[in-house]
Amino acid sequence: MTANILKLNCPDAVGLLARITGFIAESGGNLLDVGQYTDPVARWFFTRLAFTGGLAEADPGKFREGFQRLAGPLQAEWQLRPADRPVRTAVLVSREDHCLADLLWRWRSGELNIEIPAVISNHESCRPLAEREGLPFEEIDFSDKPAAFGQLEARLSELGAELVVLARFMQILPDSLCAAYAGRVINIHHSFLPAFVGANPYRRAFERGVKLIGATCHYATPELDEGPIIEQEVARVEHYHDPEDLVRLGRDCERLALARGVRFHVEDRVLVHGNRAIVFRD
Amino acid sequence: MTANILKLNCPDAVGLLARITGFIAESGGNLLDVGQYTDPVARWFFTRLAFTGGLAEADPGKFREGFQRLAGPLQAEWQLRPADRPVRTAVLVSREDHCLADLLWRWRSGELNIEIPAVISNHESCRPLAEREGLPFEEIDFSDKPAAFGQLEARLSELGAELVVLARFMQILPDSLCAAYAGRVINIHHSFLPAFVGANPYRRAFERGVKLIGATCHYATPELDEGPIIEQEVARVEHYHDPEDLVRLGRDCERLALARGVRFHVEDRVLVHGNRAIVFRD
Amino acid sequence: MTANILKLNCPDAVGLLARITGFIAESGGNLLDVGQYTDPVARWFFTRLAFTGGLAEADPGKFREGFQRLAGPLQAEWQLRPADRPVRTAVLVSREDHCLADLLWRWRSGELNIEIPAVISNHESCRPLAEREGLPFEEIDFSDKPAAFGQLEARLSELGAELVVLARFMQILPDSLCAAYAGRVINIHHSFLPAFVGANPYRRAFERGVKLIGATCHYATPELDEGPIIEQEVARVEHYHDPEDLVRLGRDCERLALARGVRFHVEDRVLVHGNRAIVFRD
Amino acid sequence: MTANILKLNCPDAVGLLARITGFIAESGGNLLDVGQYTDPVARWFFTRLAFTGGLAEADPGKFREGFQRLAGPLQAEWQLRPADRPVRTAVLVSREDHCLADLLWRWRSGELNIEIPAVISNHESCRPLAEREGLPFEEIDFSDKPAAFGQLEARLSELGAELVVLARFMQILPDSLCAAYAGRVINIHHSFLPAFVGANPYRRAFERGVKLIGATCHYATPELDEGPIIEQEVARVEHYHDPEDLVRLGRDCERLALARGVRFHVEDRVLVHGNRAIVFRD
Repeated sequence: MTANILKLNCPDAVGLLARITGFIAESGGNLLDVGQYTDPVARWFFTRLAFTGGLAEADPGKFREGFQRLAGPLQAEWQLRPADRPVRTAVLVSREDHCLADLLWRWRSGELNIEIPAVISNHESCRPLAEREGLPFEEIDFSDKPAAFGQLEARLSELGAELVVLARFMQILPDSLCAAYAGRVINIHHSFLPAFVGANPYRRAFERGVKLIGATCHYATPELDEGPIIEQEVARVEHYHDPEDLVRLGRDCERLALARGVRFHVEDRVLVHGNRAIVFRD
Repeated sequence: MTANILKLNCPDAVGLLARITGFIAESGGNLLDVGQYTDPVARWFFTRLAFTGGLAEADPGKFREGFQRLAGPLQAEWQLRPADRPVRTAVLVSREDHCLADLLWRWRSGELNIEIPAVISNHESCRPLAEREGLPFEEIDFSDKPAAFGQLEARLSELGAELVVLARFMQILPDSLCAAYAGRVINIHHSFLPAFVGANPYRRAFERGVKLIGATCHYATPELDEGPIIEQEVARVEHYHDPEDLVRLGRDCERLALARGVRFHVEDRVLVHGNRAIVFRD
Repeated sequence: MTANILKLNCPDAVGLLARITGFIAESGGNLLDVGQYTDPVARWFFTRLAFTGGLAEADPGKFREGFQRLAGPLQAEWQLRPADRPVRTAVLVSREDHCLADLLWRWRSGELNIEIPAVISNHESCRPLAEREGLPFEEIDFSDKPAAFGQLEARLSELGAELVVLARFMQILPDSLCAAYAGRVINIHHSFLPAFVGANPYRRAFERGVKLIGATCHYATPELDEGPIIEQEVARVEHYHDPEDLVRLGRDCERLALARGVRFHVEDRVLVHGNRAIVFRD
Repeated sequence: MTANILKLNCPDAVGLLARITGFIAESGGNLLDVGQYTDPVARWFFTRLAFTGGLAEADPGKFREGFQRLAGPLQAEWQLRPADRPVRTAVLVSREDHCLADLLWRWRSGELNIEIPAVISNHESCRPLAEREGLPFEEIDFSDKPAAFGQLEARLSELGAELVVLARFMQILPDSLCAAYAGRVINIHHSFLPAFVGANPYRRAFERGVKLIGATCHYATPELDEGPIIEQEVARVEHYHDPEDLVRLGRDCERLALARGVRFHVEDRVLVHGNRAIVFRD
């Protein structure tokens, strides 16, 4: 018996949760887990419900049809997905392999419920890491960037990618790609944003003499490093850590923040509203 | 317009949340915040709902009556409380004043929604700290312990204490007192339990050479340091920290863990089941 | 027998630590603790030595004279201070009292080895907090800022302040004051710098949707929030924390970061070079 | 030009650091980094010095000879090692592969300066992980434990192992092996010791309802989970985390604590005295 995950957001109103949980109960579903949040400023309602059995399992199409009759008048954006269905995830990487290695370990161990149709890169260096896991590795030549991004977008489409993870992919995505995959491109930035937007954050952290470094997992948007933040991680540093030490210490922050962010996404725990990510953690 | 907080736990069943939120909606209440958890092993359902308006505000007695008709058949344990009503809290303290000072600051600043009918101690040393806040300070002579605890229990009753906070009170409560105030006595223990149960945890932490020290906020039960854990906090230590350093560093852990634990309790965020505390954090 | 603390920094050279520790040993001193760091980029040497007994205790003037013969040719900047001599510290505060209350508790408990000749403010609100500790509270009218800062600087001089702590003092110090007290004005900023320089950091953190908030303890310099960072602290936040929650959670970060930064300074653990603070922690 | 690392500990005396740094300076060495600690209770002196050039590089034998003339009368235990020489490290593992995978990534990336003559296991399951890195994988049959441990000890000797890392090796080492490799067997235990010594710590953590879980990296000694602690790591958990969640969250603690502990050891940053590990971190 597998769980279904229902995510929904809409303008706030009285009795929303009662109506939604009522619908699930009447359809024979058994709630496992409920997350709910109302943004008091935006007056916006968010919920994530995990439930088993009932109509959603027996006849998902019919459940959707019935639920849309409830959700439509609410102007709700919603999604129903079986929890056990893996998310088709293309991983993009450049030379640094620590995030890729970490994602692959978590994928192989079952911690991340994804399937990886391809690892795509602008460099050859990560090929062995991908191929020894039996994954297709595709290099795209980025000497002509517009052509390369065109090629990339075509491949993502052919691969049926539902999610794109930038696991230290050091190319700035064009707006068109961000738009086409809005809310479905996850990036890891190697600083605790909004500090050190852009290039060389560890070098700049060293020069500023900060006592903390960090990493930020966020959705990519056309504004560089400005997208909704899913997760952040920090580590203490001391005066004796030079920029290379910061790179080394930062790698653990990057791996942890990215892995958690991807997991939250593929478990349908994230709802985005404006520039804020509502994350129903576990 | 003030919120009401409804806490409830009962054996799990299909449609519980739908029925409860449905009742609130039908009674005109507007949900602000919902926490829900089902223990999959114990098959037990826990919820905390914050809502405004409706019958619960207009006529609480009638709301309770109606709700009991829903809750009774579920064998539910439940409680309704207005969020803005302060919890009458007796603070017990011995010689160390850091937790008391911290609680008083948070009380005075409005961070903790409590009222303090008295600070009670087995020593004189904290009298000035309490009295300069305008709080009654009562010393009880503990040379005859059974008599002292009898006197203490009588005073707690006279004071109408709903909650007893042991803010580094270095006397072990008798079983009768733990039973009389089950789930209503909060203690701060100066180690990350279950490590270093009992006396001198910092000295023992030093001797063990741990790299972390901590503090644990828990409900007192007849078994010393074995009650349900509400909150824990840790700090890193190094080889050069001697036992006095651990005491100093630990004070910040104790203050933070106790303050958070008390806040979770007075905001009705904690439900206890067996020896586990379900905490709907904010 | 009290310890002396020797802080020194100078251009790097071979045998520096041997010569310095040799001098202390020959003068009869017994080393308790040595911190040493060489900046490999700036080729600069930093050390902090705690030692007891010998000439530094028996005849400090003669020790200094002898040590200067060693330090002079090294172009060293150095300082010798008895560890038990409190640092004369003026505390400046505006309306928010949490940092002040925390510092006063730590001062009274002996955790901070300071003496406080006065608490100075641009508001009346913290007067009771200072006066009940028996501390002079001085209000300065900031409606005419240049006059107010002139008055402030004169008072600091009269009070013999060795250190100025800005415990949430919401006025920007003029360059002249920063220069006159270079390396001796400690500020607490309510964000993890360099994120959210300037006003309203919690509001901006909320709007950016960060998953971490923080506080930064740094030396004030003419560039706002750009001075050398002594200590930083962070706390996790979630989507459901509104700006007021961030203020509440941030207060604990501010108190901890400021208390640690002040302690590091008064224990002569901080050496500044350019915009970086070398902190020999304990 | 490579650095040498000198580690030394001996009974405390006046002028020790001056004599040691003096010897290095006279031998033409240039100090890069000095760590020093005196245990005030045990009256014991510990130091770690990193330095380049001079006699230690030109003629290590002669440096050792000369240094022993200084160290002998001090009853010092000391060691000199070139920082760039990898530590020959046998990795022992059972079924769980997360610590092994992490160590191998850090080894391959150059973060850990070790060479791995073999991965040894009581199960076949980690063979592919080791072999795809080109490492010999040796399975030992543990159905007859005394024979297996005899075989293991013989292999470690043949392999010339300087360090043995128990990367989730679920067999309790016999006393003889602990003695033969005293201070050279590093274990990762999946709890924040001294809490949850022994088997099934995550299950017991769940049952106790702790709000923190952790991992401890320590030297193995004949007393199970009682050896000197090198590093610990913790993670927050909530009521909704079941034992499997704790296992998942704990894996990251285990990997980080083990990786740091191994790095501290192979960089000669750890000195053990009694049951306490002095760790000169970087």
